[in-house]
Amino acid sequence: MYWGRVASPLTVTARCLEKCHRGGKFQHTRTSLSSWMITDTGTVHVTGNSLVPLATMSSASTQQWSDKMLEVVRWSNSFYSKGSSREACKPFFVADHQVGHVTPNVLQYLLDRPDVIHITRHATTNDVQRVSLAPSLTTFEERTTKMAGLLEELKKLDVFVTLRGWRNEMYAVCASYHDETLMNMERAATCLFGIKQYGVHLNGYCHHPTKGLCMWVGRRSPTKSTFPNKLDNVAAGGLPSGMLVKDCLMKECAEEASIPEFIAEKAVPAGAISYFYEDERGLFDETQFVYDLELPADFVPQINDDEVTEFYLWTLQEVKEKIASKEFKPNCALVILDFLIRRGFLTPDADPNYVLFLQGLHSDDPSGLFR
Amino acid sequence: MYWGRVASPLTVTARCLEKCHRGGKFQHTRTSLSSWMITDTGTVHVTGNSLVPLATMSSASTQQWSDKMLEVVRWSNSFYSKGSSREACKPFFVADHQVGHVTPNVLQYLLDRPDVIHITRHATTNDVQRVSLAPSLTTFEERTTKMAGLLEELKKLDVFVTLRGWRNEMYAVCASYHDETLMNMERAATCLFGIKQYGVHLNGYCHHPTKGLCMWVGRRSPTKSTFPNKLDNVAAGGLPSGMLVKDCLMKECAEEASIPEFIAEKAVPAGAISYFYEDERGLFDETQFVYDLELPADFVPQINDDEVTEFYLWTLQEVKEKIASKEFKPNCALVILDFLIRRGFLTPDADPNYVLFLQGLHSDDPSGLFR
Repeated sequence: MYWGRVASPLTVTARCLEKCHRGGKFQHTRTSLSSWMITDTGTVHVTGNSLVPLATMSSASTQQWSDKMLEVVRWSNSFYSKGSSREACKPFFVADHQVGHVTPNVLQYLLDRPDVIHITRHATTNDVQRVSLAPSLTTFEERTTKMAGLLEELKKLDVFVTLRGWRNEMYAVCASYHDETLMNMERAATCLFGIKQYGVHLNGYCHHPTKGLCMWVGRRSPTKSTFPNKLDNVAAGGLPSGMLVKDCLMKECAEEASIPEFIAEKAVPAGAISYFYEDERGLFDETQFVYDLELPADFVPQINDDEVTEFYLWTLQEVKEKIASKEFKPNCALVILDFLIRRGFLTPDADPNYVLFLQGLHSDDPSGLFR
Repeated sequence: MYWGRVASPLTVTARCLEKCHRGGKFQHTRTSLSSWMITDTGTVHVTGNSLVPLATMSSASTQQWSDKMLEVVRWSNSFYSKGSSREACKPFFVADHQVGHVTPNVLQYLLDRPDVIHITRHATTNDVQRVSLAPSLTTFEERTTKMAGLLEELKKLDVFVTLRGWRNEMYAVCASYHDETLMNMERAATCLFGIKQYGVHLNGYCHHPTKGLCMWVGRRSPTKSTFPNKLDNVAAGGLPSGMLVKDCLMKECAEEASIPEFIAEKAVPAGAISYFYEDERGLFDETQFVYDLELPADFVPQINDDEVTEFYLWTLQEVKEKIASKEFKPNCALVILDFLIRRGFLTPDADPNYVLFLQGLHSDDPSGLFR
């Protein structure tokens, strides 16, 4: 048996095995191994006469990290899982543009509201086909006012946990980010209608003189209404209606981490991640614009409001371990996973879930391109 | 009218306008403008008393480039467009895993082949529901051999243009990249079954002493069976069955651009793009792993095989203009678009199609996460 410089037993994913092996012999382009066997536990033991190319095989710890990370990615896209409410949801329209989804649980409170909500039913089966804002509401102002009235009533009913966390923050409802805003809606209510929401997150990193590449991570306050005590990016926030992405980022940098404007303005956009989860509050169809900011090695973020309790400076390896744990707010873990992929800290050959990670980081419906 | 330092007439996308304006006044966080008007052509003319924040507005040339680029992104995802064959396609299964799609045009040649192809029909309507490889074929070898026989016959019929470009190159068929390979299939035939295909593309860039950041671009040979004469990445290729991504990249670097191993091995993985188009040859559901390689400023790629006729060293601005033209092989244009987004050369505030670009660069079905 050959273990070479490998500390833990080698495990080979089915794909790696297929790549290396056909017909009983490894046929790798750079090395060869005489034979292999699979144990009862699925571990592959390798025998041979040359070095194992480590890039072709996941060590037990790589496999373990990757599978834990995949759990976070899957949780963040639970709307696409087999047991989700996806199939029972009805599309939600404003002015003939689909802007979200409504679950049966929410739908029951919208059925008898013809002044605000229009229900389209199948001609023969009478099944609900789509839910729309009443087409009589033709202006931004009418739609925003009428929806706000409905939400105030739903809040008084006290049946939706999300409405207990009322934010007094208006979010833009639109068919696609670059389209016109059809109406505004209270942020806490958007998950009841599965409204596509946008935010901005920052990877704040630095080149530490002794530790190497490090990243600043925040811990959310225990009093936050969502994900209390979880680890978070150094600065992040939802995009309020009418604000530019970069301005929102600058605001969050100042409010959450006391990053001064002359540093924050150096943040560089690096794309966006999209995911879609559901939980007890509702449906979260979110896109987060991602920025990277190299912070000076001697800069230390300062707590400025009630949102954060502490900041940590961790090496990339430490951050990598943490994002696969349940300690991180899931979407913040995805923002860092995207950073690791973009900067080459994960590779398609070594990581057994690389392609699935990318699917989970960009789960927007491509039909949106042709609206 | 205020034009300030803006050379061409300002155009403001509907989204930018919504962001800046509510109720007749611009309400931007950093500046204000007294009024605006929209002309018959949709151009927004701005009057005001302070500097226009350029980041909030797309100039006519930015809008034009972005809309042209969006055409390339949409072409690359034509399978999701409204007039596509998507709704008429039937899923293609091997061993109960969906691995592709079959169009009605291909289906007619598979209906009477029970030794290789199994057709599942609806119990009452008799409509075809799914197309499968015959379940009697249980091993990799049986499936590969039987499918190869069928393809040889289809080739003789000479009804599929793609089979005239027979490659003698085996591609792996699997449900998802990291899953086991269910069978191999001749590369030229994969588009008949809409098989998910994988490749690797390289952004080869350098820091030129006077021109700044530049990128090497190749021109495909006029004799290539696909996309002759089109512009291409400096090195790229489909992933043959059984080869690692990095090894495939190293091979293409040597074969296509004579990049020596000691330089090529420095290539850094930066994720993957996914898109799905159809053309007269068939269905192309592709994922390309993306690598970036900083080439030495004095390195010049050399033609080594018949694939490339010429290499160009262009500034990033020149490359950016070209990828929005029809001169590039579309998927190579997407690889460079991804580079521009990852490195901050496009921003969500300034580019009117930023979010749509990201949707088109990552159009994999998120249900794949939960197979």
